[in-house]
Amino acid sequence: MAAKSMTLFWCSGSVPCWRVMIALEEKKLQGYKQKLLSFEKQEHKSPEVLAINPRGQLPSFKHGDNILNESYAACFYLESQFKSQGTKLIPDGPAEQALMYQRMFEGLAFYDKLGKTSEIIFYYVPEGERHASTIKRNCQTLAAELQLWEGYLDKAGSYLAGTSFTLADVIVFPIVANLFRFGLPAERYPKVAAYYALLKDRPSIKASWPPHWLEQPKGEDTLKDV
Amino acid sequence: MAAKSMTLFWCSGSVPCWRVMIALEEKKLQGYKQKLLSFEKQEHKSPEVLAINPRGQLPSFKHGDNILNESYAACFYLESQFKSQGTKLIPDGPAEQALMYQRMFEGLAFYDKLGKTSEIIFYYVPEGERHASTIKRNCQTLAAELQLWEGYLDKAGSYLAGTSFTLADVIVFPIVANLFRFGLPAERYPKVAAYYALLKDRPSIKASWPPHWLEQPKGEDTLKDV
Repeated sequence: MAAKSMTLFWCSGSVPCWRVMIALEEKKLQGYKQKLLSFEKQEHKSPEVLAINPRGQLPSFKHGDNILNESYAACFYLESQFKSQGTKLIPDGPAEQALMYQRMFEGLAFYDKLGKTSEIIFYYVPEGERHASTIKRNCQTLAAELQLWEGYLDKAGSYLAGTSFTLADVIVFPIVANLFRFGLPAERYPKVAAYYALLKDRPSIKASWPPHWLEQPKGEDTLKDV
Repeated sequence: MAAKSMTLFWCSGSVPCWRVMIALEEKKLQGYKQKLLSFEKQEHKSPEVLAINPRGQLPSFKHGDNILNESYAACFYLESQFKSQGTKLIPDGPAEQALMYQRMFEGLAFYDKLGKTSEIIFYYVPEGERHASTIKRNCQTLAAELQLWEGYLDKAGSYLAGTSFTLADVIVFPIVANLFRFGLPAERYPKVAAYYALLKDRPSIKASWPPHWLEQPKGEDTLKDV
């Protein structure tokens, strides 16, 4: 079985790691070798990770000799190599496909805006550069981004690219889950909240739910004013 | 002919715009409608752009009713919809495909590092925040990124994913071309320089060369110390 020749290094709660794990579940590739690492202990810079990923980042993923460390790359590869296994993640119709690609890559901007807000919230930014004005500006940018997705979900149907679950959802759902974990007010973003509610119990997503979120179901309310 | 139902809004020298134009050339989709816009005149925020791209960014691209404004999305869509036309941009073999996806998405980090260096160089960062220490740090980060690509090109063959031109080259070449335009010293990065020399005369790339670079073949030497 193909999953036996796969190895994933990952950490709990990471958006890019979670994407790869959802894709593996959707493609029925359970049973891969995996190792949960700790960022705090700098385990992503350990020799076993650096051996397959010179950037020392997670996820680091290997299938036989094929190395796919970027989450988008791993998702595309898994869909392409296991096309007829599990969920079909790229729709055939040109219109659905166009919408899927477009939303999937707008996920880059969405994640970037979550990141810019979180960098400060999680104290990655040096104290001297942590200005209240920057936090405020980043929160406003994130709010504007969220309004775009409210509009997209209003038009699209239940999922990001229409009526079925696709790679766009694999990529974007972990961003949405992080937003609500950190206190984004559901009543202010009803479409995004409905999308979250629909997907959170999907088997692939439940099976890959960040383990430390299960232990501690509520994160800090750091996004409550967005 | 399919190209007749395509419209591209673009600007000269933009990495994401150039990618879409190279992909269109490779897929033999010449003759699409297009409009060259000016960033300086804020034409990317004009109503005709905003009508298809709420982000007001370039490229903005339409094929019939299908909208693909993100460069990666447009490239994937064009390859998928015109698979048997022009150059085959996604290889069939699993190993070549894995390498192509991996390099293509490492292009995100490469572009980000070019961007962080250029932001300051091109004065997008407010004067008070333009510290010499930030410029130095960003240049070092870019130099480390370039060393990765030196290693990749040493192992890969002529192109990024082996012996043929793929989507990875469509995505990454415009970054490389920008580096050399702005004075990156070729002797310090011989593999990247050889890659640039090999690709710059490829017909799809020559046909889509930024028009203002033709008028003014040399940019400022802002990257000469990287």
